[in-house]
Amino acid sequence: MASEAQDLATRYADVRARTERLAAPLSPEDQVVQSMPDASPTKWHRAHTTWFFAEFVLHADGTSDRMWDRPEYRFLYNSYYDAVGARHPRPQRGLVTRPSMSEVADYRAHVDKEMTELLAGGVEPSLADVIMLGTHHEEQHQELLLMDIKHALSMNPAVGPAYSDQVVVPAADPGPANWVDVAGGLADVGVDHLADGRFSFDSEGPQHEVRLYDFALADRLVTAGEWIEFIADGGYQRPELWKSDGWYRSLDEGWTAPEYWRPDPDDAERWWIHTLTGIRSVDPHEPVVHVSHYEADAYATWAGARLPTEFEWERAATGLAPTGNVLDEERAGFSFHPAAAGAATGELRQMYGDCWEWTSSAYEPYPGFSVADGAIGEYNGKFMSGQQVLRGGCVFTPPAHSRATYRNFFHPHTRWHASGVRLATNRH
Amino acid sequence: MASEAQDLATRYADVRARTERLAAPLSPEDQVVQSMPDASPTKWHRAHTTWFFAEFVLHADGTSDRMWDRPEYRFLYNSYYDAVGARHPRPQRGLVTRPSMSEVADYRAHVDKEMTELLAGGVEPSLADVIMLGTHHEEQHQELLLMDIKHALSMNPAVGPAYSDQVVVPAADPGPANWVDVAGGLADVGVDHLADGRFSFDSEGPQHEVRLYDFALADRLVTAGEWIEFIADGGYQRPELWKSDGWYRSLDEGWTAPEYWRPDPDDAERWWIHTLTGIRSVDPHEPVVHVSHYEADAYATWAGARLPTEFEWERAATGLAPTGNVLDEERAGFSFHPAAAGAATGELRQMYGDCWEWTSSAYEPYPGFSVADGAIGEYNGKFMSGQQVLRGGCVFTPPAHSRATYRNFFHPHTRWHASGVRLATNRH
Amino acid sequence: MASEAQDLATRYADVRARTERLAAPLSPEDQVVQSMPDASPTKWHRAHTTWFFAEFVLHADGTSDRMWDRPEYRFLYNSYYDAVGARHPRPQRGLVTRPSMSEVADYRAHVDKEMTELLAGGVEPSLADVIMLGTHHEEQHQELLLMDIKHALSMNPAVGPAYSDQVVVPAADPGPANWVDVAGGLADVGVDHLADGRFSFDSEGPQHEVRLYDFALADRLVTAGEWIEFIADGGYQRPELWKSDGWYRSLDEGWTAPEYWRPDPDDAERWWIHTLTGIRSVDPHEPVVHVSHYEADAYATWAGARLPTEFEWERAATGLAPTGNVLDEERAGFSFHPAAAGAATGELRQMYGDCWEWTSSAYEPYPGFSVADGAIGEYNGKFMSGQQVLRGGCVFTPPAHSRATYRNFFHPHTRWHASGVRLATNRH
Amino acid sequence: MASEAQDLATRYADVRARTERLAAPLSPEDQVVQSMPDASPTKWHRAHTTWFFAEFVLHADGTSDRMWDRPEYRFLYNSYYDAVGARHPRPQRGLVTRPSMSEVADYRAHVDKEMTELLAGGVEPSLADVIMLGTHHEEQHQELLLMDIKHALSMNPAVGPAYSDQVVVPAADPGPANWVDVAGGLADVGVDHLADGRFSFDSEGPQHEVRLYDFALADRLVTAGEWIEFIADGGYQRPELWKSDGWYRSLDEGWTAPEYWRPDPDDAERWWIHTLTGIRSVDPHEPVVHVSHYEADAYATWAGARLPTEFEWERAATGLAPTGNVLDEERAGFSFHPAAAGAATGELRQMYGDCWEWTSSAYEPYPGFSVADGAIGEYNGKFMSGQQVLRGGCVFTPPAHSRATYRNFFHPHTRWHASGVRLATNRH
Repeated sequence: MASEAQDLATRYADVRARTERLAAPLSPEDQVVQSMPDASPTKWHRAHTTWFFAEFVLHADGTSDRMWDRPEYRFLYNSYYDAVGARHPRPQRGLVTRPSMSEVADYRAHVDKEMTELLAGGVEPSLADVIMLGTHHEEQHQELLLMDIKHALSMNPAVGPAYSDQVVVPAADPGPANWVDVAGGLADVGVDHLADGRFSFDSEGPQHEVRLYDFALADRLVTAGEWIEFIADGGYQRPELWKSDGWYRSLDEGWTAPEYWRPDPDDAERWWIHTLTGIRSVDPHEPVVHVSHYEADAYATWAGARLPTEFEWERAATGLAPTGNVLDEERAGFSFHPAAAGAATGELRQMYGDCWEWTSSAYEPYPGFSVADGAIGEYNGKFMSGQQVLRGGCVFTPPAHSRATYRNFFHPHTRWHASGVRLATNRH
Repeated sequence: MASEAQDLATRYADVRARTERLAAPLSPEDQVVQSMPDASPTKWHRAHTTWFFAEFVLHADGTSDRMWDRPEYRFLYNSYYDAVGARHPRPQRGLVTRPSMSEVADYRAHVDKEMTELLAGGVEPSLADVIMLGTHHEEQHQELLLMDIKHALSMNPAVGPAYSDQVVVPAADPGPANWVDVAGGLADVGVDHLADGRFSFDSEGPQHEVRLYDFALADRLVTAGEWIEFIADGGYQRPELWKSDGWYRSLDEGWTAPEYWRPDPDDAERWWIHTLTGIRSVDPHEPVVHVSHYEADAYATWAGARLPTEFEWERAATGLAPTGNVLDEERAGFSFHPAAAGAATGELRQMYGDCWEWTSSAYEPYPGFSVADGAIGEYNGKFMSGQQVLRGGCVFTPPAHSRATYRNFFHPHTRWHASGVRLATNRH
Repeated sequence: MASEAQDLATRYADVRARTERLAAPLSPEDQVVQSMPDASPTKWHRAHTTWFFAEFVLHADGTSDRMWDRPEYRFLYNSYYDAVGARHPRPQRGLVTRPSMSEVADYRAHVDKEMTELLAGGVEPSLADVIMLGTHHEEQHQELLLMDIKHALSMNPAVGPAYSDQVVVPAADPGPANWVDVAGGLADVGVDHLADGRFSFDSEGPQHEVRLYDFALADRLVTAGEWIEFIADGGYQRPELWKSDGWYRSLDEGWTAPEYWRPDPDDAERWWIHTLTGIRSVDPHEPVVHVSHYEADAYATWAGARLPTEFEWERAATGLAPTGNVLDEERAGFSFHPAAAGAATGELRQMYGDCWEWTSSAYEPYPGFSVADGAIGEYNGKFMSGQQVLRGGCVFTPPAHSRATYRNFFHPHTRWHASGVRLATNRH
Repeated sequence: MASEAQDLATRYADVRARTERLAAPLSPEDQVVQSMPDASPTKWHRAHTTWFFAEFVLHADGTSDRMWDRPEYRFLYNSYYDAVGARHPRPQRGLVTRPSMSEVADYRAHVDKEMTELLAGGVEPSLADVIMLGTHHEEQHQELLLMDIKHALSMNPAVGPAYSDQVVVPAADPGPANWVDVAGGLADVGVDHLADGRFSFDSEGPQHEVRLYDFALADRLVTAGEWIEFIADGGYQRPELWKSDGWYRSLDEGWTAPEYWRPDPDDAERWWIHTLTGIRSVDPHEPVVHVSHYEADAYATWAGARLPTEFEWERAATGLAPTGNVLDEERAGFSFHPAAAGAATGELRQMYGDCWEWTSSAYEPYPGFSVADGAIGEYNGKFMSGQQVLRGGCVFTPPAHSRATYRNFFHPHTRWHASGVRLATNRH
């Protein structure tokens, strides 16, 4: 077995095992519920990522007799084809009580067995590409699994349930943010898929030049303490700070603070926060997280600054080591929450991990981008409307998804992802 | 221990055991979901009926140290007090994954232990009344548990899950319906609570006279086969058959058949039906079930008849044995579905059990009715607006709830209860 | 021309002239708008009542060549047939800018000319019945016209527009309400259509007996001052006073006072009210008006009383002269608003006029009621679901609609009609 | 009076007169209605554009005694300040029947008299800038006035009302579209506000460089005939052609054709269209118009092409004369509808006028853009979220708004503006 095949088999096993590790603290009841249409049940994530390999790999090699599968799995766990009637409606995923959690575990085990045998025999490069895509797809769902269960557990305020029993201690003050200047000019952005041997998503390319102007980035994320000042200064009541769409959305949804913050009934200056380690006080030194693009933009206006474009962010990140407080569930002390920045270094801090950073860029195709044929072609292209790019990764992001070219995207009103704010300003 | 106390203890044990028997076929996943705001999870029913005894009996005697309880149970499982913020919002009951199913089982066991000890020692009559009310309350929730899980399982069309593996065989033709004449005049209706030693709900009294006119009732329920004729004759497309509110509701919800009926994609004359024993063909001889009041009324108009008033029904039922196809989950062959009427006898058939029978009467208080003080006073009175009375009981109804004076009620557009149609006509 | 024919011609002319008188103060802009789906534009009322005579009288006698009409009028001004697509959607009535107000005036003039000629020649009794129905139908729309324009003008708070420039002076204190006892027993209610020579609607019959129990009615309507006490005592914040449907509706709609009341921003005890004579202070001595059935019922519960049934009201009204503060737009000082009760007399006051009185009775058919064939048969029967009966008439009601048997009806949540509250209590 | 001041006075008079000319064919009823929340009544446009001069010019010079104004005008006709409660809710603009159309005409006349006197005396440059902005603002509302009344009149299908009685004749076939190649490289885009003496909006600058890649544009707009082919090929039923947001929106709104197209009930291949000259057959040679961005994008995908970016469009347009079928209501034969392209010339046709052309660019600020202080600062910046750029102008666009740098913007789902499609493709 060649080293490259060995690597793929190892990666397959590692990714699959991490999903199971992330689901392990959750009961059958926890794994079945869906707390809003944007979210999915844990059980569904576990089954859907498995269906990917069943559908695109085990079926694709023509040996359906090797396939352990049931027709309803193809119906229930397909999120790809949008044709009317062809798949189970997303908002009803939480009503599918059967197959049970343990049947889904069996499904995973059977597919893993088939896949392991297949990988042991070696696969064609084109199939290896699909399998590699499947592992990255599953890592995206690992992040979604954590986002979604955090939201689901938040719907039970009486019990205040925790996903992890890690104890969290207050953080040290990271000090004021400082501007770090970055030169403009013509910049290469994006991935050259042919030249770059590493995996990246279709939307990360083609590599191309963009014209940038001199700018500066803040050297750390906005903190919860700074956000409390924004609230206290009427940030949520001043329409002149907001984009029009954002202002009306905020009124409709009654926003007065980030998602998961709850006012203290007795102390107007104190805020509580729901986290994966339970409900605790907001720590002013930790980054603010779970804010919408609208809130991030209003905050930046209030602060006399702006959000960076995605290409400003990418230029600034190029050359930095893609390391930070990303998903590391086996690390001692890992708390599934963004951590405070360390002391200032003169360089950019927290560029990777902690919080996804909202940019001012709409999620649009790069020049020369085209959608691949077939179902896998639906991967990213169909989402290139109405969504906003985020960069850098967060505490729920698997390490393999930390790179300067990675483009995450969400609608500007959503908040259940671990999104935060880094400020930018002009230097021209 | 006196015989009456013994009876109450026995009844308590029997009712509590039946709830557990009804829940037993359901997995943790089945028991946590809520498929619509009107319905509740199985786990919630099990906990809420237990909370009733904890709150109104075990707390009520002042010995809170005997109480096994957690504060969140009082919040999560109280459906009584409507004050804003005072209880968990009903539409989110399906998102409460914790306490788990097994913790709820523990809760039931602890409260049962306390209650059994209490009952063994004998209780004051006023407390005995509350306990008796609690057992009837729990029986109402047994019916709701079956209605609600039937709806929840229907949301999984891919799997077609069944609650029971009972095999159902086609029924014999009950023959055409016949009119049974009933004389009008002054009739006593309702319960005299002081004179009648048996339990009944507050809304069943006071007993009073009403003036009736001669009428006739059909001697059996409308069948599924008759309903297929109504459909084929354009019953769902002809507004002149419908009440105005019903017509617009039908358009809004896209009704073309009773709840749980599904057209056969290949055979326009064939209908499939979701039942607690799985998906099967509609049997033309069985009663139609799961129709709204609006549909029942439109059918009656189409048939040249009308629905009975609740007092016509009660007068006709008085003197009949309150027996029929009601809940009997331990009986061999019991299928959790209405059964076809037997051969005609010249008397009224199917007056009890099978399907609740929609009446043309709004659910209003009887002359002299007044609401009891305190939380238990919310029991029925607050629902006396916008709802329609149904009489007779259904296949999900515990036998103790079969009596001539029992007033069930639902909004006229709802269909997840086992409601059917008996026709009436004037004889004056 | 016989006297009866003369009477019909006179009545036709009088009714038609009043509609024009009521519309006269309104501009083309006022007459085209529709402020909510329940309401209709003034222009539509003027055209629809005309269409009734065109469709059911001028077309009905087979002489369509005498008919001045355009096909779009039959489409736009038909409110009767509910078949999908057959008529213009009600919520879009306010978007029909053409025909213009003056074209509608021409339409009225042409139809009136045809009708006057027809009536001068004498008509068959069956056609006379239709014409008489048409005049009563138009009187119902006169009341709707006033209700609807009151709502429409209320949508312009900046201008505070008035329909009438009548000056209103504060009323004298009517003193406390007193109970008037009424005996129960068997009572004849409703109209015997064959025996009674006067016009009445189908739903007012058949005459029949009902069994009543002794009761008492308050001798006047609830006042605005009493309602202010209800508000001050938390009436809108106490769910135990409300029916369940009403409580949730109140929360959804944010009710804190009757429709058209507006809090004074500087004085918590002062209320302003929009009336057809403009915005002014609430007068504590005038009756409260524009409350929903839910509010009326909650008030009665708060006051330790209840609403009367429609038959209690009818029994108490039988024998009283059907006179009061009803529509009399030509009377000096007429202000289009309920007036305070005069001093107590020991008899029932304000039984007719001022405010429609909510009863606790659902709008249901009387024993033996049947719907007439054809389009006119849709008149009342199809509304016999989900609505509540009101009795007595209001200040917008034409005098010909004041009688003991008249059954008005609205959904329990609506408030744009001039509805008020009379309390009842048991005497048995 | 200097020439520049003279020019401003002339421009003021011309713009104001055109608004009145555009409103002249409309009755009081036509001018008061609002057919959807995005649209405004004609009367409102006439008043709001007048309020702009009252508020920012006549008030601004401190001589409020010269001001003819009423407080309610400042409330009703202010669309600028978003603070809650500070202005009249947009969706209720159509319910404001008073002031009447003729009162609004008086308001316009009074403000025009004041403005004319002011301009005759000469104004400071900063005030001249505000007045110039006011005239361009009013021209934007001229386009909105036509869009909005077109939508309002479409709500009256019975009458099929026309705004203009111009007779429209079928167009000649423009022949197939041809690609016109455009070179990429570094391009200057946008306006240098300091250097360019002509008026332009804040969002058109600052001028800056962008890096483009070689591309080609179609030499004419997509035709209605081509769109009929798209429909016939299942364009509205194939999710793989659509962006995800667009597909769900299309399902929600039931799109099967462009706005204002109506199927012929008897001929599946024939389409009818509502225009400002009434209802007529779709002409296959005219451009398709009133399509959303989602439809435009799906069409481009179906056609194997894409939409241009806004900078590609601007580069291609630079140097072309900004002339075309734009608003020219006094021209003989002007039909208020896009016209067919003339014969191919080898150059780009229809770049200005006819239809706004959807681009693939989100409406975002240019590098260095900043929002002006005060209320006028709300002008464009607050809309820079969730909207898509359109370029080129349409048949409703005043000629002064035809220029290569003009950035129009709408949400991607809207269709009531005169938007069409020009295809682009890669040449790299």
